[in-house]
Amino acid sequence: MSSSMRLADLAVAAAIPAPATPSEAASTAWPSDPMNSLTVGEAMHRLARELYPLRRSLTGDGFRETVGRVGQLIPLTVTETRTGTQVFDWTVPQEWNIREAWVANAQGKRVIDLEYSTLHVVQYSVPVRQRMSLAALRPHLHTLPDHPDWVPYRTSYYHETWGFCLSQRTLDALPDGEYDVCIDSTLAPGNLTYAECELPGDDPQEVLLSCHSCHPALANDNLSGIALAVAVTRALLQRTRRRWTYRVLFIPGTIGSITWLARNTAAARRVQHGLVLACAGDRGKLTYKRSRRGNAAIDRAVEQVFRHAGAPYEILDFSPYGYDERQYCSPGFDMPVGCFMRTPNGRYPEYHTSADNLEFITPAHLGDSFARLMDVVQVLEGDRMYASNNPYCEPQLGTRGLYRTTGGTHVPGYEMAMLWVLNQSDGSRSLLDIAERAALPFALIRRAADDLLAAGLIREADA
Amino acid sequence: MSSSMRLADLAVAAAIPAPATPSEAASTAWPSDPMNSLTVGEAMHRLARELYPLRRSLTGDGFRETVGRVGQLIPLTVTETRTGTQVFDWTVPQEWNIREAWVANAQGKRVIDLEYSTLHVVQYSVPVRQRMSLAALRPHLHTLPDHPDWVPYRTSYYHETWGFCLSQRTLDALPDGEYDVCIDSTLAPGNLTYAECELPGDDPQEVLLSCHSCHPALANDNLSGIALAVAVTRALLQRTRRRWTYRVLFIPGTIGSITWLARNTAAARRVQHGLVLACAGDRGKLTYKRSRRGNAAIDRAVEQVFRHAGAPYEILDFSPYGYDERQYCSPGFDMPVGCFMRTPNGRYPEYHTSADNLEFITPAHLGDSFARLMDVVQVLEGDRMYASNNPYCEPQLGTRGLYRTTGGTHVPGYEMAMLWVLNQSDGSRSLLDIAERAALPFALIRRAADDLLAAGLIREADA
Amino acid sequence: MSSSMRLADLAVAAAIPAPATPSEAASTAWPSDPMNSLTVGEAMHRLARELYPLRRSLTGDGFRETVGRVGQLIPLTVTETRTGTQVFDWTVPQEWNIREAWVANAQGKRVIDLEYSTLHVVQYSVPVRQRMSLAALRPHLHTLPDHPDWVPYRTSYYHETWGFCLSQRTLDALPDGEYDVCIDSTLAPGNLTYAECELPGDDPQEVLLSCHSCHPALANDNLSGIALAVAVTRALLQRTRRRWTYRVLFIPGTIGSITWLARNTAAARRVQHGLVLACAGDRGKLTYKRSRRGNAAIDRAVEQVFRHAGAPYEILDFSPYGYDERQYCSPGFDMPVGCFMRTPNGRYPEYHTSADNLEFITPAHLGDSFARLMDVVQVLEGDRMYASNNPYCEPQLGTRGLYRTTGGTHVPGYEMAMLWVLNQSDGSRSLLDIAERAALPFALIRRAADDLLAAGLIREADA
Repeated sequence: MSSSMRLADLAVAAAIPAPATPSEAASTAWPSDPMNSLTVGEAMHRLARELYPLRRSLTGDGFRETVGRVGQLIPLTVTETRTGTQVFDWTVPQEWNIREAWVANAQGKRVIDLEYSTLHVVQYSVPVRQRMSLAALRPHLHTLPDHPDWVPYRTSYYHETWGFCLSQRTLDALPDGEYDVCIDSTLAPGNLTYAECELPGDDPQEVLLSCHSCHPALANDNLSGIALAVAVTRALLQRTRRRWTYRVLFIPGTIGSITWLARNTAAARRVQHGLVLACAGDRGKLTYKRSRRGNAAIDRAVEQVFRHAGAPYEILDFSPYGYDERQYCSPGFDMPVGCFMRTPNGRYPEYHTSADNLEFITPAHLGDSFARLMDVVQVLEGDRMYASNNPYCEPQLGTRGLYRTTGGTHVPGYEMAMLWVLNQSDGSRSLLDIAERAALPFALIRRAADDLLAAGLIREADA
Repeated sequence: MSSSMRLADLAVAAAIPAPATPSEAASTAWPSDPMNSLTVGEAMHRLARELYPLRRSLTGDGFRETVGRVGQLIPLTVTETRTGTQVFDWTVPQEWNIREAWVANAQGKRVIDLEYSTLHVVQYSVPVRQRMSLAALRPHLHTLPDHPDWVPYRTSYYHETWGFCLSQRTLDALPDGEYDVCIDSTLAPGNLTYAECELPGDDPQEVLLSCHSCHPALANDNLSGIALAVAVTRALLQRTRRRWTYRVLFIPGTIGSITWLARNTAAARRVQHGLVLACAGDRGKLTYKRSRRGNAAIDRAVEQVFRHAGAPYEILDFSPYGYDERQYCSPGFDMPVGCFMRTPNGRYPEYHTSADNLEFITPAHLGDSFARLMDVVQVLEGDRMYASNNPYCEPQLGTRGLYRTTGGTHVPGYEMAMLWVLNQSDGSRSLLDIAERAALPFALIRRAADDLLAAGLIREADA
Repeated sequence: MSSSMRLADLAVAAAIPAPATPSEAASTAWPSDPMNSLTVGEAMHRLARELYPLRRSLTGDGFRETVGRVGQLIPLTVTETRTGTQVFDWTVPQEWNIREAWVANAQGKRVIDLEYSTLHVVQYSVPVRQRMSLAALRPHLHTLPDHPDWVPYRTSYYHETWGFCLSQRTLDALPDGEYDVCIDSTLAPGNLTYAECELPGDDPQEVLLSCHSCHPALANDNLSGIALAVAVTRALLQRTRRRWTYRVLFIPGTIGSITWLARNTAAARRVQHGLVLACAGDRGKLTYKRSRRGNAAIDRAVEQVFRHAGAPYEILDFSPYGYDERQYCSPGFDMPVGCFMRTPNGRYPEYHTSADNLEFITPAHLGDSFARLMDVVQVLEGDRMYASNNPYCEPQLGTRGLYRTTGGTHVPGYEMAMLWVLNQSDGSRSLLDIAERAALPFALIRRAADDLLAAGLIREADA
């Protein structure tokens, strides 16, 4: 083994953790308590680790393996759409599958190898089997000079070419000479795959959760989104009753949401609230990007949850760049779909590099994202409009045992929450409206409303 | 006299000023100039001093004596409502009267005595005549450990019990032993009393001023409110003409406004502007709490006055906690009633203690509250909508003698006020709208409008 | 020559640059490239220099000479309105012409002379020919004690009097004694003159540009406004096609716009966007005063241009004081007319003094005002509403050659501009709306829309 080889190996080893062993994958048991966010965070991280080495791409068997594993955790319907199918302005592309991809030196030693990392090949590379000089190979090699130890993530979905991604340090260590290049891929008519989980609720109107699932070994973008979608779906499955129907999509980015929308226009129209889930496991603060509407209930619900979560957060206005919200929020659909993230795409240097690895995401941050997303679900499930049964002057709370109990056992603000619900419940304001005006957490307002309902002091007004 | 006795006496003496002598009370002559705010402030303070020692409570003769004295200053109608009367969700409580209340030590020396302060007995205490150990007495004794010289104010309107309030220092000085306890009170069917003054105006629509008048020896909360209501009523009485009908209420807190509302639903519907007056004499800055509507004319009028008063102030959003605005702003009434204060309830440590005494309020601050409230009245009386008689281009002001005069004799901004009134008077904006947009004091805008009216340049548009 | 004479001469010489020579005036050739703002700025400054010595006033031959020179640069229609004509609440005043005005000392030496500066005589002075003592003369002499070298600008349009303006230093140097006073003026029935240029466009709806042109030797107020109006008109003349009809007014202040409005009510109703141009050549930052409406398209267009111009600027709310926007924004007209300035009237000490001279304005700042005003014109001309032809999901930009080109040749943000236009073009939002929401320069949004139109991806929606 030449010295240059050792350097290359070291660089790859530093950048990309080893894949999970089969035995480790088998041990992934989801925690039984869906509300223990740390435990859930650990399960999410384990799922990400399992999915990490799979050869995901926009289409192909790596995507199918990914949703196959997810399908062991939640019920999934998998849909295949034929290459060439017209979906709005787009055409479903050819299916890509890859078996091996490597570059070997004159001694036969593989200096770049897909076996080490699924990032090493440019996605959608056409087949190659050729001996060529380093000079001729160079235009096909992609590096990140500013981060010499990191391997970039590159795709070429709509322009036929081939290439390899490697660290700058590996490239620098390659001696001139002849190299054997092998990309054993197929790019041929086939199918585009996506999977969805539908959880029926009392209301046929829907809540949409969507995560792109086409990126290979990138942990935050997009394994964290997949893990978050699985976690929240499992928690929703445990509910005896759901107000809304939930639809969770695992799709290839852009072309996947376009294909889903083209095939599911009626379902799209039923969506009352929606979130794209992405970049949900890094150590950054929670970030929400508003829907195109800007003041949809989902926009207000997420902001309400973040405001009372006791940690820094950021709210971004909608912009027509980012993830699949670009399609959901296209003017013809204009769906109320925002984007739930921690650090957004493109705002961290590790984005779309091998440094977006399993150490870049943590069980604690995945669990925190899960907990806050469940808070959002609680707002969507619990927001209703009530009317006071005693609209003229305040009702007596003491005689109903509601005031006395506030002395010690109840949280501070609970009494204020009751007064706010009574004062504002005139049939025109929802609990979310009230929580916003009272500057109190939605959960506290919801609890006060439950107690007032039980005492017969308010009634539903939005039936 | 034992040493412990002397300590107790000293504590009480320090906390509670001596009552006014009859001769001092008799000298309370209201100043003839209702607009001299300092003189009015002094009269207000004298009135507070007279009312201070009366044994006010939610019901009973102390309340009647209070409104009786007020009735010597302004015309009052007193209404009695029978115990047991249903008022919305509430029931008028029993009437409470107290003759004496004391605790005497084994030597017969009274260590706590209602004679010293009306705060010493828990309001609505049931009768007691008993000898008991200090240990047995202790659960009935209320103190403020953090303010060892102050006596707390305690009530038990809706839970039958008895008790005494005293300073921590007095309590600490009480030796173990037997004590004679006497509360000579009656809690029996009777009446709830409130008083109101109605000043008719050109318009049967009403302005409501309301102050709770049920607290015993507490100067800021609520004697300052009573004094402010009296002062503004006397000033309104001197007007030869009033635009609005004014209704001024002196009521027991909560149950009083609920009872008034239950008996006066039609009058409540006529209220166009309203203010609860409370905590108006302390040295703090002026504070206004908005009505439930948040942008009612009264909310804008008060904010306009405060903004141009040249002193710090605070505007609070509505919240369903505080004084009787809770009832006026209940969703069925939703009256445009805010709360006019200096330091709000609960925001000063002296609140609901013997330290809220006659020195806690000052003639200057009472007078300032009066002056600003009269400014608010001027806005309510003077806000009208006009239409320019020369809507196309500016009229010539010089030929009408309006421009020339602005050189020296008029205040700066007067000319701008005229231009603003002319420019904005298109029949859709009131003078208050114009004052807000021009960022000029309402009084200046009103004066400009008067001169433009006199010159025939504008006409009333809201008739 | 006495020493006092020399002082006076020096003071005038310091304050007021010499008039342009005839040969210099003749050389004023407007640059052929109307978009080279520096060259245009130089031409603007040359025009200001030519106009500087003319004896402009509210009426009379000096005004006619001014619009006569402007008429050599752009096509003008001159309108005369007879003295005594009723225009709304006003009457067209008498016409004033002045031939000479001076004060001579006992030795016959002229110590104040209109020949030196047109500021030396109070505008609208009645004729005088009299010998009088300095004491008797003094009430007719106006100075600026705080700026002893400057000559003030004074008028007395509506009060018959006479007077001279001079520097405090000149006044201080005048010895007591007898002086000969001569004002050879006529104030008699005649006409009020204004000029207008109409540039027809595809749409009979109009854009109004208005500048007062009645001030004598004051460079920023108002020669810069005249020069700016000329420059933008010449640029508009070079357009092969104009969307809007443009009307450019050169009028005496106040009475001029009132007279124009009285004679052109129908044209006034056709104005969709308007600007008063004034104080446009000083070294201060750009300032815009909003129309009475406050959110008219012109208000948003100017703010959009200033925001992206890369220099400090200020936006002022409307107030009914300033220039002719007072008349255009009177409540009966309420035209969408704002005021485009650099440093506003009254906010610089040189305002209405001889220090507002040709050195107070610079070619660079005149040119910058011109460039920004042309940007505003581009917004007005280019703002349209479009509808996407692919409202459901994004269209493929790559296949149309729109994405590929963004790699190198296009400015950053161009790609975002395309995505914004596609996302927002639902037939309800104009390009200006989109530019505001995207926080991108209008020109970039407009260019993206042009390319999307060419590619058939959007269509006009506001026809």
